[in-house]
Amino acid sequence: MIERAEGEPFSKEEVGLALRNHGMHLEGLRYPVTPIGMHYLLIHFDIPAIDGSSFELEVTGRVDNPMKLSLDDLKARPRISIPVVMECAGNGRSRITPRPASAPWGEDAIGCSEWTGTPLAAVLRDAGLLDDAVEVLFSGLDRGIDAGVEHAFERSLSVDDALGEDVLLAYEMNGQPLPPQHGFPLRLVVPDHYGVASVKWLRAITALTEPFEGVQQTLKYLYQTSEEDPGTPIRRKLPRALMVPPGIPDFLTRERNLRPGRVTIEGKAWSGYGRIERVEFSSDGGESWGDARLAEPEGPHAWTPWSHEWDAGEPGAYELCARATDETGRTQPLGAEGSWNVGGYCVNAVQRVPVTIA
Amino acid sequence: MIERAEGEPFSKEEVGLALRNHGMHLEGLRYPVTPIGMHYLLIHFDIPAIDGSSFELEVTGRVDNPMKLSLDDLKARPRISIPVVMECAGNGRSRITPRPASAPWGEDAIGCSEWTGTPLAAVLRDAGLLDDAVEVLFSGLDRGIDAGVEHAFERSLSVDDALGEDVLLAYEMNGQPLPPQHGFPLRLVVPDHYGVASVKWLRAITALTEPFEGVQQTLKYLYQTSEEDPGTPIRRKLPRALMVPPGIPDFLTRERNLRPGRVTIEGKAWSGYGRIERVEFSSDGGESWGDARLAEPEGPHAWTPWSHEWDAGEPGAYELCARATDETGRTQPLGAEGSWNVGGYCVNAVQRVPVTIA
Repeated sequence: MIERAEGEPFSKEEVGLALRNHGMHLEGLRYPVTPIGMHYLLIHFDIPAIDGSSFELEVTGRVDNPMKLSLDDLKARPRISIPVVMECAGNGRSRITPRPASAPWGEDAIGCSEWTGTPLAAVLRDAGLLDDAVEVLFSGLDRGIDAGVEHAFERSLSVDDALGEDVLLAYEMNGQPLPPQHGFPLRLVVPDHYGVASVKWLRAITALTEPFEGVQQTLKYLYQTSEEDPGTPIRRKLPRALMVPPGIPDFLTRERNLRPGRVTIEGKAWSGYGRIERVEFSSDGGESWGDARLAEPEGPHAWTPWSHEWDAGEPGAYELCARATDETGRTQPLGAEGSWNVGGYCVNAVQRVPVTIA
Repeated sequence: MIERAEGEPFSKEEVGLALRNHGMHLEGLRYPVTPIGMHYLLIHFDIPAIDGSSFELEVTGRVDNPMKLSLDDLKARPRISIPVVMECAGNGRSRITPRPASAPWGEDAIGCSEWTGTPLAAVLRDAGLLDDAVEVLFSGLDRGIDAGVEHAFERSLSVDDALGEDVLLAYEMNGQPLPPQHGFPLRLVVPDHYGVASVKWLRAITALTEPFEGVQQTLKYLYQTSEEDPGTPIRRKLPRALMVPPGIPDFLTRERNLRPGRVTIEGKAWSGYGRIERVEFSSDGGESWGDARLAEPEGPHAWTPWSHEWDAGEPGAYELCARATDETGRTQPLGAEGSWNVGGYCVNAVQRVPVTIA
């Protein structure tokens, strides 16, 4: 694993990944549902060209009744639409030292779209999922090389997670057919889990009697505290609060500039472990905190709006921070020092936005 | 101006710009019209929040009949839809040495959307453009700091260019209202010019008796061969051909791998100076060339499809190249050495795609 220290320059490979796999513009946190095209993307290989009219999803493995479902078959099944926060497991990666070489995310690998599709659980029940199945594998049509191994993108869920309420076989995003880059014609959407679980360009669902051991589960997207640590696959999203950076930016540095006076700071917060119970705001780099006002999210898997009135009184330099706490008591560390792990996953240190009042 | 040598590491500012301002996935070259969300973005400041229902476009300056036009007023005017290739003037910037610090584009700052709107020329005529006007200024609602100066994004066209056929006041992209990040509710679309001319979040059109001297015309987006060169504002797109990289990629390096055998290489080509007359393909890094087959573009400002049958016979390493020539005889240099300029604009060296046949 190539590693780099924080602030150390980035490689051309990291820049190439950043240009392909974009973040959400943080001013997009103003929207309850992220406008199409603004949602983050992580595309491991190439976007496959798929003909929706001949597409078939295979449901196979340890099931009584293997099935092949066309897009029309899927659309004829019960239909639900839910807003879901999606976040890359590598979000925050560039905050750790040394930095693993991969998509060099700041904190913007996020989005909250309205996904429409049919519940996975009912499909698995109709297929007659057998009692000896322990995991359900989701296989994509995208193929490439990662960690030195050629493979199609695949990732599994435990049977319990696969049967979870609101896990969707999604064919629409914000009321439109999935764009190619978001998984046309069909993708999985697993609320509360990091984005890696929501396999795009879904080709097959296979019930397994043994845990899946493919590249994206045992070599990548694995939380390892050291190279010797066998690690555990990445699952649920840790809590995070982000703010719309206030004021106006400098083009190159993105540093923020504001006039003195009161300003409403707004943002969103979420956790894959439960409801957001508290968001705090700091204007002094995390020395002192005040509670932000929370509003109702658009649904159980949507992000929670928050706002805070800040009196940017005196000219000078400030560091604005936001911190989320969920109903399980999980919260965000002040810095990323304790979050280091081999692949750079689950780094949820508080956001820090330097601003100049002048 | 901060500068870096080619291959030299990238700064965190460049990475931040790459994550916000994404390229088009080059496999998207397979589409005649780029799917929504896949088109490149260059957002100088923040995406403004604009209420379309109270929005008004001001037409002012050296006109007989200053106007304010609502979105409904604009939609009631003659409506046309045209596919237009858009390309950032900084596309290719990371190929030059030393590299100016800005968006670190490879060659993917491109897209070809179908834009719908009303012709600008008729609006200027209805406003009674006066004879002493020499330029028309387009002012956006986005504001920030660039080159040390706080300003709203503004850019001008000569009166001739502004009256050009197919220059649009566009309110739809691919048949949908403009997404916020592409200029909602209204933007200019100037076919044949680099993207900088197509001002987003358009607030005002002002007829001027003197050339505009704002930041984005006299400090940025200026073609200067040295710091002493007063330079000329960037205008039309130089010719470029790009291919869909064949085979499958490695996640981190994006290096391509293919099996031996015949493969159809496909891509698109364009020029802001006229029709594409020739596209050539090379599999030996530009030592020898063969003519690609051209197809008809979807319109006079759309990209020209091309394809080439390549017999990837022997295992080994190859460097695939594509080169476009337009009807004026303008073509692409083999390398970027001669393309250096202060801001890193108009770098149209041939695309080079290393592939391994195995």
